[in-house]
Amino acid sequence: MALHPDRLFPSDPNARSIARRLYHEVASLPILSPHGHTDPRWYGEDALFPDPATLFVKPDHYIFRMLYSQGVALEDLGILRRDGQPVETDGRKIWRIFAQHFHLFRGTPTRLWFEQSLEDLFGVTERLKPENADLLYDIIADHLSRDEFRPRSLYTRFNIEAIATTDSPLSDLAYHAGLRASGWQGRVLPAYRPDPTVDPEREGFVENLRQLVSLTGQPLTWQGYLTAHRMRREFFKSLGATSTDHGHPTAQTADLSPAEADGLFKIVLRGAATSAEAEAFRAQMLTEMARMSIDDGLVMQLHPGSFRNHNPLIFREFGPDMGADIPSPTDYVRALKPLLDSVGNDPNLTFILFTLDETSYGRELAPLAGHYPCLRLGPPWWFFDSPEGMKRFREQTTETAGFANTVGFNDDTRAYLSIPARHDMARRVDCAYLATLVAEHRLDEDEAQEVARDLAYNLAKKAYKL
Amino acid sequence: MALHPDRLFPSDPNARSIARRLYHEVASLPILSPHGHTDPRWYGEDALFPDPATLFVKPDHYIFRMLYSQGVALEDLGILRRDGQPVETDGRKIWRIFAQHFHLFRGTPTRLWFEQSLEDLFGVTERLKPENADLLYDIIADHLSRDEFRPRSLYTRFNIEAIATTDSPLSDLAYHAGLRASGWQGRVLPAYRPDPTVDPEREGFVENLRQLVSLTGQPLTWQGYLTAHRMRREFFKSLGATSTDHGHPTAQTADLSPAEADGLFKIVLRGAATSAEAEAFRAQMLTEMARMSIDDGLVMQLHPGSFRNHNPLIFREFGPDMGADIPSPTDYVRALKPLLDSVGNDPNLTFILFTLDETSYGRELAPLAGHYPCLRLGPPWWFFDSPEGMKRFREQTTETAGFANTVGFNDDTRAYLSIPARHDMARRVDCAYLATLVAEHRLDEDEAQEVARDLAYNLAKKAYKL
Amino acid sequence: MALHPDRLFPSDPNARSIARRLYHEVASLPILSPHGHTDPRWYGEDALFPDPATLFVKPDHYIFRMLYSQGVALEDLGILRRDGQPVETDGRKIWRIFAQHFHLFRGTPTRLWFEQSLEDLFGVTERLKPENADLLYDIIADHLSRDEFRPRSLYTRFNIEAIATTDSPLSDLAYHAGLRASGWQGRVLPAYRPDPTVDPEREGFVENLRQLVSLTGQPLTWQGYLTAHRMRREFFKSLGATSTDHGHPTAQTADLSPAEADGLFKIVLRGAATSAEAEAFRAQMLTEMARMSIDDGLVMQLHPGSFRNHNPLIFREFGPDMGADIPSPTDYVRALKPLLDSVGNDPNLTFILFTLDETSYGRELAPLAGHYPCLRLGPPWWFFDSPEGMKRFREQTTETAGFANTVGFNDDTRAYLSIPARHDMARRVDCAYLATLVAEHRLDEDEAQEVARDLAYNLAKKAYKL
Repeated sequence: MALHPDRLFPSDPNARSIARRLYHEVASLPILSPHGHTDPRWYGEDALFPDPATLFVKPDHYIFRMLYSQGVALEDLGILRRDGQPVETDGRKIWRIFAQHFHLFRGTPTRLWFEQSLEDLFGVTERLKPENADLLYDIIADHLSRDEFRPRSLYTRFNIEAIATTDSPLSDLAYHAGLRASGWQGRVLPAYRPDPTVDPEREGFVENLRQLVSLTGQPLTWQGYLTAHRMRREFFKSLGATSTDHGHPTAQTADLSPAEADGLFKIVLRGAATSAEAEAFRAQMLTEMARMSIDDGLVMQLHPGSFRNHNPLIFREFGPDMGADIPSPTDYVRALKPLLDSVGNDPNLTFILFTLDETSYGRELAPLAGHYPCLRLGPPWWFFDSPEGMKRFREQTTETAGFANTVGFNDDTRAYLSIPARHDMARRVDCAYLATLVAEHRLDEDEAQEVARDLAYNLAKKAYKL
Repeated sequence: MALHPDRLFPSDPNARSIARRLYHEVASLPILSPHGHTDPRWYGEDALFPDPATLFVKPDHYIFRMLYSQGVALEDLGILRRDGQPVETDGRKIWRIFAQHFHLFRGTPTRLWFEQSLEDLFGVTERLKPENADLLYDIIADHLSRDEFRPRSLYTRFNIEAIATTDSPLSDLAYHAGLRASGWQGRVLPAYRPDPTVDPEREGFVENLRQLVSLTGQPLTWQGYLTAHRMRREFFKSLGATSTDHGHPTAQTADLSPAEADGLFKIVLRGAATSAEAEAFRAQMLTEMARMSIDDGLVMQLHPGSFRNHNPLIFREFGPDMGADIPSPTDYVRALKPLLDSVGNDPNLTFILFTLDETSYGRELAPLAGHYPCLRLGPPWWFFDSPEGMKRFREQTTETAGFANTVGFNDDTRAYLSIPARHDMARRVDCAYLATLVAEHRLDEDEAQEVARDLAYNLAKKAYKL
Repeated sequence: MALHPDRLFPSDPNARSIARRLYHEVASLPILSPHGHTDPRWYGEDALFPDPATLFVKPDHYIFRMLYSQGVALEDLGILRRDGQPVETDGRKIWRIFAQHFHLFRGTPTRLWFEQSLEDLFGVTERLKPENADLLYDIIADHLSRDEFRPRSLYTRFNIEAIATTDSPLSDLAYHAGLRASGWQGRVLPAYRPDPTVDPEREGFVENLRQLVSLTGQPLTWQGYLTAHRMRREFFKSLGATSTDHGHPTAQTADLSPAEADGLFKIVLRGAATSAEAEAFRAQMLTEMARMSIDDGLVMQLHPGSFRNHNPLIFREFGPDMGADIPSPTDYVRALKPLLDSVGNDPNLTFILFTLDETSYGRELAPLAGHYPCLRLGPPWWFFDSPEGMKRFREQTTETAGFANTVGFNDDTRAYLSIPARHDMARRVDCAYLATLVAEHRLDEDEAQEVARDLAYNLAKKAYKL
């Protein structure tokens, strides 16, 4: 049952041996995690992690969505209800439910990440099943109580060189500031995620917007609002931020006249925006943020195309981010044009595109990134952060955009303990892809070695200015 | 020329040997055919099948569409014209045309099904060609005249455990009733396909609707119409039905108020529905049918996305189902929302989704099925019921939805003699996929064996309540 | 570094040995190039080609778009500016920039074409890099100065049997006429590309239209305009043309009444067409051209779906065809219906469809081509003229449309020296695909040999009537 050293490599012996050699070059490179969702508090407080269920099951929507799809109630997994009605609190009981349904994860990346974490961190080489659920729970719980499993120790053990968190413009970044002052050598960077202050359809938007201008002493005007963003971006930069991130329903951008933008701002400020006006405001803000990036150098990331909170019952009872976000078709070629018309040729902009619509890889994203100097392709995201997803990404983008217009791997996770396994999977799958090119004489092996190191380390360092 | 025992397995020796072992476990499992189009009359009358051309060529739109695309007239293949003008009636002549064009099927699943049927059933191991067309015709015709080639004998020989037909709500299910009374052990089940009484754009819809309420003694009202469906579903259940099936142009659903629905019913009853009203009525009926399924337990299937009768000349001269139905882009994430908002979290509903738009596999269908408890993914359908189609289905859905949110294989065919070959192809391709996972150490072989049995038998049995 | 004889073949030894045998059958077949963009002047004047940079870098948008995406200025690559401001003219300096960035092409078809051209034509087996840039420049320049590198000698060396150029209806085809008169044995054919006279949104459209009718002595009416096209098509045919080609933003067709078409013509003639009217006119003209093809036998090609000149800065400064054309989603099933309703069943029409939207392969194009007698599928085009693109094309179309509804390979290039490498790549990738079918016992090897020859030669000869 133990992890096989050749996992994720091609089955053909010749290609496999090439993959092994390539992987050998990159397996122990430091981890750059320029886009993630770990909690800065963890590094700040350096407290012990809680029990195995609270660590592995409750916060992982990949896991509980699969269990839910097969009839397990979220309450039984300890997911908190908005109405405060009781849910399961016994971590061991939750863990047993997970063990009973562990077979559901066959063929999924979650399974591979989980098992690698268990073996590498806790020495567990047995497959989780109802019969050994308690034993594994105890082994993990025992490890989690040790000092070497505190977040900062794990940071070192994981060989992380830099990791970015995701933060609201309204955040005081207290943990980031504290870390800087602490003398700890770890590099935990904030990332500017302005969505709560940019999306008129978010709960609390108007309040957030008022708070943003108030924080920065700006007037409640379009220009004041833009200046407030500039000031908060500077503040984030002062604590190490190198990037911004934008999670929008679509990739729509706009380039309105100042008067039009000013008028639109007045509408959204009243909380009176129609759906089309909200979309226009978000669209305009992407272009504004791109212009700010040209000025302050922050790298810009766009994550579009998720239909959030598709299941109203789940949203009502449990809130957002409960595994009910579903991808939808996403246009880039027309949607990005206003922004690209304005700033697409500027060498000082780095604009990294992600997608949940794989049909755009070859049709739109690779052709766009293979032309516009500002564009780069982010790695396969969310549902596609998987062996097949990564393979399709390379197969559908490389021939048009090459490797240099991509930016290496993002783990995109709040599951701290899975980070090494996620990077390892990405390195293995990229080496497998490169090995196939070498085996088919489409690339020479010395070049594949360079590319493997680029994909595992150099491209992320360069694109994210780390 | 004979069938190779390793056909459809990976070429790599290691993966191939794993595939062989997995296939060995499932090759002889009974056939469950929960979604098919064989004629209940066949089992009821148990008559001999007609000549080879009438059996293999005339009814198979996969075959005659390919010949038509290369210039063969449908009349020359014996396809009946609506105007009664003469068409070829000599089966041998039709067979010879088929033999002359048999090379067109290189690389298609039709070719593989056909050759496996010929070898397994008639001992033919030669490739069909003009030179041996008459010989093969005679061999097949000779076999077809024997009692062991009657439908019930073949049912036993094929090792079918249960097979569903597709039936109109207006059908009296006389053959199904007769089979129940006959004492024959075969299990031939009806399936409730209400399209003729649900789709206002079908020829004869108003008449069908009137007949439906009349059959059940209901008033010609919205509520009477719904009750009539409930009663016919009960009748179908009494003769063994476990499922309904819905072939709609799109996956659009609706959840209208009773008053709105009542008003819409009055419009469609007058035969006066606009295209949008017809779509709204079909959409509403999917949600109504889902609610009925929660009550009566019938499993619901949706087959959307076919642009029917794309070629008006062919439709005018030969009618529907003549190989001129073309897939079109199909939305699920927005279209299904009204239904899912209403009943998506109900554990008593099983709603199986099919698609003719493969781009929806990874982007919409797997994420939806990996979350909603009621949803399951049907197997690759129609044009995609093929080795590459099955491979893409697994590659694009497994990482997000796993195996348990799929329902095994459907043969979906009226070509009775091809049923074993179709199931055999599906088992081989699934074993090949699983073998690749094992060879790449993404799944352990003992687990792959369990999954192979699930895909070949258990999942269909459970999902379709057989 | 030298070209490997097994390049692009599968890595698995069994499949590879089959691929080798299949390739052996087709490697030296003559080249048919029925859709290309070489300059008829080359063959007419038979002059020496200029320096390596002018030959390989300046005219190749695959190359300079990639360099531009990574920050290289087009001026530094010698691309002429519209405003006449100076650009780099030193071929050696341009070549050095190319060498510095040559690593960007890892994993791209451009790299493979380039290296095969260098080895086969100039005996260069070193990889281009900054250190050997001057040496390789000198070697290539030396060869280009020799008589055996004149276009006509290369035509013979390349074993070209026929090559089509792309020509405006307004062209006098002087070089084609001259070639016919010259006694040279090469077969260089014009192709009728009416876009400048058909697309109301092209610069100069009204002027082109006036010139067209004037050239043919026709009145400036809808009927005169159609007759003018018929006459120019006849003129093209008289100089060997066998095909027309249509590059439209979409695949939209129309079948207007004569009165409607006449009214629309009057609008576009005034230069007053709205975007919708322009689309309607293009759509109508596709159907008119199809009708003309039925009469005069010219094979019709449709290349839809490119969003031209996406980058306004580049368009303003450098003009069209500068690597800023981006694919967009393309509908066929609804768009083609008016044309197909009118002429889709006519056996005298050959209508070859191309796409930049790979999602249409399996969903729309293969089902359409597997039914309509007039339809054939063109090879993977532009961004998808690549190993992975060709593989996806076969995997997604063969099971539904077979091989006979495809038309072999088009090189689609103005890069004359790359033509043998492009055809060689296509032959290798098709043989690799066929070898996989044979290795998995989905096709017999004797049949695969026939198919390989069809794909490399016979299908193009038949479809394009060469």
